Amino acid sequence: MDAATATLPRTSGSVDRLVRLAEADMKGVNALITDRMQSDVPIIPALAEHLIAAGGKRLRPLLTVAAARLAASDGAGSENDHCLKLAAAVEFIHTATLLHDDVVDGSQLRRGKVAAHLIWGAAQSVLVGDFLFARAFELMVETNSMKALEILARASRVIAEGEVLQLMRSHDLNLSQAVYLEIIQAKTAELFAAASEAGAVSAGVDAAKAQALKAYGLNLGLAFQLVDDALDYGGTTEALGKNAGDDFREGKATLPLLLAIARSGPREAEFWERAIGRREQTEADFRRARELIVGTGALDATLDLAADYADKAKAALAIFPANDWRGALEDLADFAVSRRT
Amino acid sequence: MDAATATLPRTSGSVDRLVRLAEADMKGVNALITDRMQSDVPIIPALAEHLIAAGGKRLRPLLTVAAARLAASDGAGSENDHCLKLAAAVEFIHTATLLHDDVVDGSQLRRGKVAAHLIWGAAQSVLVGDFLFARAFELMVETNSMKALEILARASRVIAEGEVLQLMRSHDLNLSQAVYLEIIQAKTAELFAAASEAGAVSAGVDAAKAQALKAYGLNLGLAFQLVDDALDYGGTTEALGKNAGDDFREGKATLPLLLAIARSGPREAEFWERAIGRREQTEADFRRARELIVGTGALDATLDLAADYADKAKAALAIFPANDWRGALEDLADFAVSRRT
Repeated sequence: MDAATATLPRTSGSVDRLVRLAEADMKGVNALITDRMQSDVPIIPALAEHLIAAGGKRLRPLLTVAAARLAASDGAGSENDHCLKLAAAVEFIHTATLLHDDVVDGSQLRRGKVAAHLIWGAAQSVLVGDFLFARAFELMVETNSMKALEILARASRVIAEGEVLQLMRSHDLNLSQAVYLEIIQAKTAELFAAASEAGAVSAGVDAAKAQALKAYGLNLGLAFQLVDDALDYGGTTEALGKNAGDDFREGKATLPLLLAIARSGPREAEFWERAIGRREQTEADFRRARELIVGTGALDATLDLAADYADKAKAALAIFPANDWRGALEDLADFAVSRRT
Repeated sequence: MDAATATLPRTSGSVDRLVRLAEADMKGVNALITDRMQSDVPIIPALAEHLIAAGGKRLRPLLTVAAARLAASDGAGSENDHCLKLAAAVEFIHTATLLHDDVVDGSQLRRGKVAAHLIWGAAQSVLVGDFLFARAFELMVETNSMKALEILARASRVIAEGEVLQLMRSHDLNLSQAVYLEIIQAKTAELFAAASEAGAVSAGVDAAKAQALKAYGLNLGLAFQLVDDALDYGGTTEALGKNAGDDFREGKATLPLLLAIARSGPREAEFWERAIGRREQTEADFRRARELIVGTGALDATLDLAADYADKAKAALAIFPANDWRGALEDLADFAVSRRT
């Protein structure tokens, strides 16, 4: 089977509409981020800036802002700027987890730049992560929303549990799909869910609408992580992203790999055992793994599952009136699956 | 000068009265600690238990409970059990910082046991620290006190700043006393202060009394850390504690050392430069350093400063009626200075 034609067509989508709608709000969020990462200890803003200025899509704070604005748009909630502080807090929590993750995994690169711990040392990365985590809670306190604090404290705890679980199980080639999904829900989707729910709560909507936005975030997060894991094997294109192959080289048990192993014949068992189990890899191994992942349908199955979650995310928004914010979040769900990088 | 007679007499004191008064409350705190360190990921309670069960004096949660009970004892505040949850949260924050510190410093021992990161790995220690930190905030949310959250979020942030500052400056033999005090305030005294203030706030006292208990905690924390740093050079006895000499071997710029270096003659400059600056140490060097620290009066000056802070701590309590809780906190301040281990 040819890799380029092996996959189903995916609904296209884009993050552009959301970015445009949230432009003014995100300016406010970015100003808060810059302001609150300052410290009298100069290494702290320097290290934080290295990672935060490198960008990333700022998806999580975007979700907080969009959830708040959509929640307020139907007249039930109220328009206020608490969501900006919560969005900045969400980005700080995310940045703190990235700093700690990179220490934990010994990663070399983050957002295309040398990982902070390789410049400032692991100790400083751990401590600046702690600083940002605490700052996130200081920002939340300023919004005076105990419910938002509850949501984001819980998410922070679940993320840590997910990271520990991943560290213990991530090289287990017999990992079940259920445990894989548990891990990506904890380490990725919970923060997407919390970011959305906290935004909704800050607008003062009723529980049903807050739950709808939480469900949107959770399913979007699962879709995003599944596609990330697929893109690490090149996704549906032959043009591999700059980090493609990282999971394979680390022998990380992600769904495309787990499905391919389960679907491979006895002839391939030895290959997987050597390349992943013992991590004795040659140059040609990644290409062979990719061929098996495409050939067994493991890549398509992963992307199909992502598309299911994206559909669930969109369906959760049905409780809201059809307007620009809802449309932008629907586009984002499509983008989660259709993106090529 | 003989080391055993070199020092001023210190007021004796004890933690016993406080431990006795708070016994029932601390049972509740310990039950909460055990309950909330549980997780579906079994390595988390195992690692947390290793450190938490090793004990320590539980001084910080004791302060939270005592501050709440003293605040309520004059009739202005209210008796309730929020302080137990805040006390457990304070212990979790403290435990999280210990886990991260031991990774950062590469420490071998903690509370007389092998450091957790040497058993479970640095990665798990970092992540379980994150878990406990998040759990602390979940506990605080349950008390529904935004003020307590504000106090402890701020303290957590200041601790991280103090740790970063210490990491940058701790081997600087020209460190000023002012910066040394800034570091120990941030890394130790702020949590003592926050633990006390949060307890007071949970009892609903007025701002003046909450500030008084904050001042008590801050000054107590400074006294404790100064005495810790003195005890690392054997304090006033020849019977050295089991960790005595650690700071010297690490070349850590604590006040006894900084004062001794400043007060040494040119003949000793070379010794300090070799043993601390370049950390080329022989077996005999610690004894020589201790002789200089005692002989120059650096040890006494450190303990005198600690005694001043302990006096300030006691003076801050004058706003409260003389009762058992106040007496127990006064005893604790004396104990901070008189203790031998």
